Amino acid sequence: MLTTAQIKHLKSLKLKKYRQNYDEFIIEGDKLITEALLGNEDMTLLIATDEWIVNNKATLPAHVAVEIAKQKELDTISSLSTAPPVMALVKQRSYTIADIEVSDNWILALDGISDPGNLGTIIRSADWFGINTIICSNNCVELYNPKVVQSTMGSIFHVKTIYTDLHAFIAANKHICVAATLDGQQVYGFQFDNEGILVIGSESHGISASILSLIQHRITIPSFGKAESLNAGVATSILLSLLANK
Amino acid sequence: MLTTAQIKHLKSLKLKKYRQNYDEFIIEGDKLITEALLGNEDMTLLIATDEWIVNNKATLPAHVAVEIAKQKELDTISSLSTAPPVMALVKQRSYTIADIEVSDNWILALDGISDPGNLGTIIRSADWFGINTIICSNNCVELYNPKVVQSTMGSIFHVKTIYTDLHAFIAANKHICVAATLDGQQVYGFQFDNEGILVIGSESHGISASILSLIQHRITIPSFGKAESLNAGVATSILLSLLANK
Repeated sequence: MLTTAQIKHLKSLKLKKYRQNYDEFIIEGDKLITEALLGNEDMTLLIATDEWIVNNKATLPAHVAVEIAKQKELDTISSLSTAPPVMALVKQRSYTIADIEVSDNWILALDGISDPGNLGTIIRSADWFGINTIICSNNCVELYNPKVVQSTMGSIFHVKTIYTDLHAFIAANKHICVAATLDGQQVYGFQFDNEGILVIGSESHGISASILSLIQHRITIPSFGKAESLNAGVATSILLSLLANK
Repeated sequence: MLTTAQIKHLKSLKLKKYRQNYDEFIIEGDKLITEALLGNEDMTLLIATDEWIVNNKATLPAHVAVEIAKQKELDTISSLSTAPPVMALVKQRSYTIADIEVSDNWILALDGISDPGNLGTIIRSADWFGINTIICSNNCVELYNPKVVQSTMGSIFHVKTIYTDLHAFIAANKHICVAATLDGQQVYGFQFDNEGILVIGSESHGISASILSLIQHRITIPSFGKAESLNAGVATSILLSLLANK
């Protein structure tokens, strides 16, 4: 049974302030629980309905503390419109640029992505297309925002997402930088190298001027209709698909 | 000034039942208002703060009724977390399959897309890549759901989205059908014709078996990492980008 203090603590993690104080976050639903266990994440508590626990007893790892919760309690802890019957408390991993593996691959750099659904979708697509590392400018939306976590569909545990001063990172890096802009060279026909940094700007302001000054190539997804722009998650994913299938 | 009855009516349109009763929906923010006016949509009422009206007087069309609203009133009418200073009441357009223009272009068919953000994103991407017509199975999320409307970023006024019995539509259509599945031929290298129907399945169940039996080609976006799937809006957009740039 969950104590009142535990419920209060779990509910507090809806707010960034408390997620940062405790270095913890909540994951919801079977898919994320499975991925967290597969990834050997530091899961400190699993809470679920009686029924869920009965049905999943065989696969529950011995090292994770388990508490039964009423659906009503899960409803108050959940950030989703419909609370699933299982959630878990997981310790945040914080990666720094020292954790970037040297390899002949592309790094994705995000400059001010502010929509949590977009960041989650980008992480999921990066995972699909084999990108291991995402560098976020410090003004990107927080990685452990519940909407980011849920929309990664577990890819949050496969991709290293690192927050840093993006300008300083790019300035210190020897890789070729390619940026998605509205005035670049058509991306179809663009010859991607085997490694580099792909830079994506914010939904409303694009790439900041100081970072744009460090870019070698600007690329654009050509338009055929009347839409003014593509969703940032979509545009990033299209570019990653071209990178992966170059 | 808005009357209490008007506010009640506008608030009721958050629910599908009332949107369908009145054939109306609400659009929020400058971008959608601009696109609705450009598209000569049937806008029956524009509501905005005093300040917004003062700043936009020059561009307000004479034929649209305008009411001043307090920000507090807009907050109660809005479906967004932060209500913008301008909204409008717009009549729904209902297209049928008789409205499909005969042209050598692709039609996008959606089988049970249920997430409003995904449908909105797909409409926006279809617009970007020059697709004029989307056929939705009757169990897709409603077009005038506020989250769909807002995430189209105005493309709802550029693309004809038609709800129908998708199986019957495809069965009666002479075009080649290409479906996105997880077990298809690699899409890179797939030769798209100049016209056809691209079929996308639901987020959780894919394409229904009865529709799958009508499909000539199955295509797949190859994976390079550990993600189990791509977001449905992303996968659709990647395929549309390849179609448009074939």
